Amino acid sequence: MISDLKQIWSESAQGMQRSVIRELLKLTSQPDIISFAGGLPSPHTFPKKALKEVMCEIMDNEANFVLQYGTTEGDQLLRERLVDHQYRPNEGMDITTENLIITTASQQALDLIAKIFVNRGDKIIVGLPTYLGGLSAFRAYGAEMVGIELDDNGMRADLLEDKLEEMKKAGEKPKFIYVIPDFQNPTGITMDEERRKKILALAKKYDVLILEDSPYREIRFEGEHQKTFFALDNDGQVITIGTFSKILCPGFRIGWVIADTKITNKIVMAKQAADLCTTPFTQRIAARYLQKGLMSEQLKGTVALYKQKRNIMIESFEKYMPEGVSWVKPEGGLFLFMHLPEHMDSEKLFMKALEQKVAYVIGSAFYADNSIGKNTLRINFSYVDKDKLEEGVKRLAKVFRDNM
Amino acid sequence: MISDLKQIWSESAQGMQRSVIRELLKLTSQPDIISFAGGLPSPHTFPKKALKEVMCEIMDNEANFVLQYGTTEGDQLLRERLVDHQYRPNEGMDITTENLIITTASQQALDLIAKIFVNRGDKIIVGLPTYLGGLSAFRAYGAEMVGIELDDNGMRADLLEDKLEEMKKAGEKPKFIYVIPDFQNPTGITMDEERRKKILALAKKYDVLILEDSPYREIRFEGEHQKTFFALDNDGQVITIGTFSKILCPGFRIGWVIADTKITNKIVMAKQAADLCTTPFTQRIAARYLQKGLMSEQLKGTVALYKQKRNIMIESFEKYMPEGVSWVKPEGGLFLFMHLPEHMDSEKLFMKALEQKVAYVIGSAFYADNSIGKNTLRINFSYVDKDKLEEGVKRLAKVFRDNM
Repeated sequence: MISDLKQIWSESAQGMQRSVIRELLKLTSQPDIISFAGGLPSPHTFPKKALKEVMCEIMDNEANFVLQYGTTEGDQLLRERLVDHQYRPNEGMDITTENLIITTASQQALDLIAKIFVNRGDKIIVGLPTYLGGLSAFRAYGAEMVGIELDDNGMRADLLEDKLEEMKKAGEKPKFIYVIPDFQNPTGITMDEERRKKILALAKKYDVLILEDSPYREIRFEGEHQKTFFALDNDGQVITIGTFSKILCPGFRIGWVIADTKITNKIVMAKQAADLCTTPFTQRIAARYLQKGLMSEQLKGTVALYKQKRNIMIESFEKYMPEGVSWVKPEGGLFLFMHLPEHMDSEKLFMKALEQKVAYVIGSAFYADNSIGKNTLRINFSYVDKDKLEEGVKRLAKVFRDNM
Repeated sequence: MISDLKQIWSESAQGMQRSVIRELLKLTSQPDIISFAGGLPSPHTFPKKALKEVMCEIMDNEANFVLQYGTTEGDQLLRERLVDHQYRPNEGMDITTENLIITTASQQALDLIAKIFVNRGDKIIVGLPTYLGGLSAFRAYGAEMVGIELDDNGMRADLLEDKLEEMKKAGEKPKFIYVIPDFQNPTGITMDEERRKKILALAKKYDVLILEDSPYREIRFEGEHQKTFFALDNDGQVITIGTFSKILCPGFRIGWVIADTKITNKIVMAKQAADLCTTPFTQRIAARYLQKGLMSEQLKGTVALYKQKRNIMIESFEKYMPEGVSWVKPEGGLFLFMHLPEHMDSEKLFMKALEQKVAYVIGSAFYADNSIGKNTLRINFSYVDKDKLEEGVKRLAKVFRDNM
């Protein structure tokens, strides 16, 4: 054995710690716990029969292709389906397949983007709060987070402008602004077009890239579909990330990056060294599934199911939650955010919730500055079966009421 | 568009360049070219029928599990199969499932190991020549390569000792020694036990980790199965990497790292931020395939096929190659290495070979110091169909003879 392993870890590894959230999540896997933690899609949305058929066809007709190495850029058929049948016609995004690179789900997209842009000490602007996996991907390359608070329309443009101006005066420039414009994780908040345009204008003014992460975009229950940052720009200022994890299944590990070709070229080089290629087999299943036109019907079912679940959640909150507890009603996605009265601490209450056989994720985990957001928590409503949602809320309400 | 993208790339991205090899490989994909380039397994070795059956069973019985997120550590069943039914009983490796983490093929293992150990400017000891994908994974984190020449038994222990001593005197220590002990890529050379023991002893003396990469280990045509570095040590000095890419299929993207739990713990944290988990679907297919005991028969077929191919290659070399050309006869694996007379340059001859409709990989690509190895080339014998091997060699021999 090496004499002192601690001395030879990279700076990156020295900063890595077992995630508190991961440890907490492990506790929530007991079968009698109703878990609003995690971010899992409902298995009822997986199109198992159709996928099995597609798989069998592929194994009969193109097995040698899918079992072999694939190209680093990704399955050409899948890229075409996404570009020519989704992003260009439906989203007004001015791109070709050269602008879209398949990644090992959107987590790898975050990782590779950090890898090609971040040097230790570089700054990245993020929402307060924001997706935890984004924070850990960026931190692994030594990035420092600059947090901007949200309001009901997402990241506050006024605070963003102040911060960019302040940084400019200090001779600093963030590598990018990380936003989750649709049904943000963890808050469930969606940016309206006005906010998007303001943030885009600031990005242009201060010459900063925008990283738009959009895993839940297609899961909209109501309200108006908003344009992507990418479509509002169509001029290379925006990098957009997508994934099948929430709209088809996470087990395929397929995501993608859409960006200027100068950026996708670098991502290909980085990905080549990181994992050579994403699973060709699951890429081709997804491509054929899209080609058969099976996605839109299935997605309707998913949206209907999650909308029903969200409604049950909100109704149950209204019925059971004590005075002083408030929540966001999201127009789509998988999550909603809850605020407890200022003096309450969701981390301290977590073990009490577990005793009541219910779980959530503590809100402070999503804040780049962990000292804030102590009185918040994230609730997932996609995974728990419909008939258990009300009971879960009841248990949670009891924990809060007993500890007010 | 951002004003100057070049200014905001990370140092890592600034160092990334489109690989010459990749560009050359693209030229070799025309159908009339007999390509000894690339490193693809033969599609004839893919157990298509058996895999289809296993997939169908999984979709019938455990679809919700395989389509959902998996754990970062990997499929527990697969880890057990590898540990309890392969490495412990057959390889004498003293490990539990805690020591084995599934990765998105062995390329990700190389990436994550670099991530947890390498700071910019750190040194890594590699063979001259060595696997190109190893070099690019390490370089992406700013590692500097220290090359040690090989002889017929692999990395030279005497030169390694000199180098370690020299570095010690300079107050330096490499992060690890990267070796491919079995049928090395690109040379096809295997280290005997004596060499392994010598290198291990040096690693212990100088307190340096060994990174043992073993993708071809199971593909042995003849000669004695050698103990792994890990088994010779069993004391935490060695990290071993394995993969299904060459023995089952590359399209599943499954590899693994075996190491001390302090190291596997860090890898799990790094992987969590890099891609959350490896495709659960293909992991479970592999696990069930192993559980059914289907691997060993199939592997016999692969070994027999590749042995036949190697033999045809060597016989054709003997028949056609001009005086002054020499080659390694590998005891297994997918590659062999060729030396041309000193004055010849395989890169300059590459385009002439393409004109003759035959391709290879230039040897200098595998040298950490690209200025050497100009007169070498790597030949892959696994991919090209048996009945085309002799014709390919004939064409190649003509190119060399015409340019002597």
